[in-house]
Amino acid sequence: MQPPYPQRLARIRALLRASKMDACLTLHRPNILYLCGFSGSSGALLIEPRGARLFTDSRYTIQAADEVHGATVGIVQGSLLAAAGDRLRRTGARLRRVGYEDSRLTVQQLKQLRKASGARVHWLPVHSPIERLRAVKDGGEIVLMKEAAELGSRVFEHVLPLIKPGIREFELAAEIEYRMRRMGASGPAFETIVAFGERSALPHARPSGRRLRKNELVVLDLGVILRHYCCDLTRTVYVGRAPGRIRGWYQAVLEAQSAARHALRAGVTASQVDEAARSVLRKHRLDRFFTHSTGHGLGLEVHEEPRLAAGQKQKLQTFNVVTLEPGVYVEGVGGIRIEDDAVVTPGEAQILTTAQRGFLEL
Amino acid sequence: MQPPYPQRLARIRALLRASKMDACLTLHRPNILYLCGFSGSSGALLIEPRGARLFTDSRYTIQAADEVHGATVGIVQGSLLAAAGDRLRRTGARLRRVGYEDSRLTVQQLKQLRKASGARVHWLPVHSPIERLRAVKDGGEIVLMKEAAELGSRVFEHVLPLIKPGIREFELAAEIEYRMRRMGASGPAFETIVAFGERSALPHARPSGRRLRKNELVVLDLGVILRHYCCDLTRTVYVGRAPGRIRGWYQAVLEAQSAARHALRAGVTASQVDEAARSVLRKHRLDRFFTHSTGHGLGLEVHEEPRLAAGQKQKLQTFNVVTLEPGVYVEGVGGIRIEDDAVVTPGEAQILTTAQRGFLEL
Repeated sequence: MQPPYPQRLARIRALLRASKMDACLTLHRPNILYLCGFSGSSGALLIEPRGARLFTDSRYTIQAADEVHGATVGIVQGSLLAAAGDRLRRTGARLRRVGYEDSRLTVQQLKQLRKASGARVHWLPVHSPIERLRAVKDGGEIVLMKEAAELGSRVFEHVLPLIKPGIREFELAAEIEYRMRRMGASGPAFETIVAFGERSALPHARPSGRRLRKNELVVLDLGVILRHYCCDLTRTVYVGRAPGRIRGWYQAVLEAQSAARHALRAGVTASQVDEAARSVLRKHRLDRFFTHSTGHGLGLEVHEEPRLAAGQKQKLQTFNVVTLEPGVYVEGVGGIRIEDDAVVTPGEAQILTTAQRGFLEL
Repeated sequence: MQPPYPQRLARIRALLRASKMDACLTLHRPNILYLCGFSGSSGALLIEPRGARLFTDSRYTIQAADEVHGATVGIVQGSLLAAAGDRLRRTGARLRRVGYEDSRLTVQQLKQLRKASGARVHWLPVHSPIERLRAVKDGGEIVLMKEAAELGSRVFEHVLPLIKPGIREFELAAEIEYRMRRMGASGPAFETIVAFGERSALPHARPSGRRLRKNELVVLDLGVILRHYCCDLTRTVYVGRAPGRIRGWYQAVLEAQSAARHALRAGVTASQVDEAARSVLRKHRLDRFFTHSTGHGLGLEVHEEPRLAAGQKQKLQTFNVVTLEPGVYVEGVGGIRIEDDAVVTPGEAQILTTAQRGFLEL
């Protein structure tokens, strides 16, 4: 089933009209993919009041003809920005107020566009309107994200037998990414995190040559990309029989995640979900070890809107997809993080990831 | 042996003084890594007349203390740009003319900087001064790049036995990336290209589910990252006994690459090297099938300066490291590309990659 590209473009056009803009340009790959289906690495999409125009280069002639819907394809020799600017210049008075994504475009790119379009075009910054649309998934996207989350969960369960004393962090990471690919993912959504023992206290540890020993924590944080959509899954296991303190931390993090899951629904603010997780850890006197936010949006990119963090006042909407990933990190000892992907609904959140969440002692 | 960070910073300071600038800010990871050794994902480096200051966040406290040389580390809560701007505001009249990388900074980031630094600081665009320094490698970098190139070459030879009818493109890509990691690479330098049969005519093919059949071309384009440095290697092999036409194309591409290698030396222009390869293919009436440029710089990033392309008038310098990768691509039939990495010297270029270049029929 084809994604509803024309409807997505129509929604952006409505937003442009509401801001008294005639057109909008995006260079951001996930935005282009979302609006017209093109997945090439080089593209500029100009959304006009009637129609849209994708500029790309001759490497993508065949691919663009195959993938693009709802936009005319222009194959460009030379700069895509010059071609887009030139198109605007030639439309004369019709397209005067044109939006650009100020958090994506470099200063140099804007300068190139201004030069190519001429002074009659007014370039106006827009603040992520396409990302805001993307934050609310449609039914087809939810189906794809469910498949990605299930694949990521199967990968986790597949590598459990490899978690044995002696394996190195980077070896386990290599095994995980290898299995993702063999199981059909286009690749990892981010560099897989594998952290053993005291290194699990680093939330963003990069796999090192450190070997696993008995009686250690293991944090695995992995994501697959499947048909362009990401999943993001973390599990923490213990190799050996865990001391009571570690079990206690695990149960507290699990309880925090459960509280976040129950708080998560359409209409609550993002900060309320963060606070739900944080208050559980506070009760266990572990909140000072929870050094990051509770979660983030997920979709074509692994970090999207909304952010589930303190101070985030925006209300969650039905069909936001977010991670729920509280953790505790005790320097010199270790860390525990449990992360699942969830769909916001008017009622109970739907969890997409299926890997078991109970404490595992291997 | 530690890279000469203080010397690198001193060279940037000299460039700044020559342009009448007091300081310069970079957010670009490879630039930061090059100048002070920090490899984290989030950093802002302010190069001042005496000293330099790296702003990062609390996730990197330990790592920054370990990695950074020649710069003071500031751990920031909140925006790194606000912290850098605030530092400039507080220096008063001392740092007034500050460079920013206009091809890296977004419009929004520049706006944030301006706001944080106040109107007394003049932000001036600089055009990749750090990238220009990086284009000329030092001895330590050449050693690392040689190791990366040898590792990439070993990976290629390691996977040759897997190239058998029935394997899918993405399976072979997964095997290649898995072996990279197992053999010590931190990861692939780019998404590995595996293209069978008629798909080899797409220079930027992404691995698909296509199975290899007998009597087909196979293009493998792979890169490893080893201790932050990239290699980039392409080989084309034939599964079965190749028809004369294919052998002829292969020999022509090999001859073109050899011509480029012999043309490559300090003092010639980048376009001359491109033309050396192109003219051989012209002689064989294959130049219209050579649809991209002959090569690109390589180092901390897989695409750097200089570009070996028509119209590139800059002169090559001793210790530029570039790829040499002519190819022919015949739609519906297949493509051949041969790519090696080479160090520019005053005399004969030194080839870093060691994988055999002769025509292989498997």
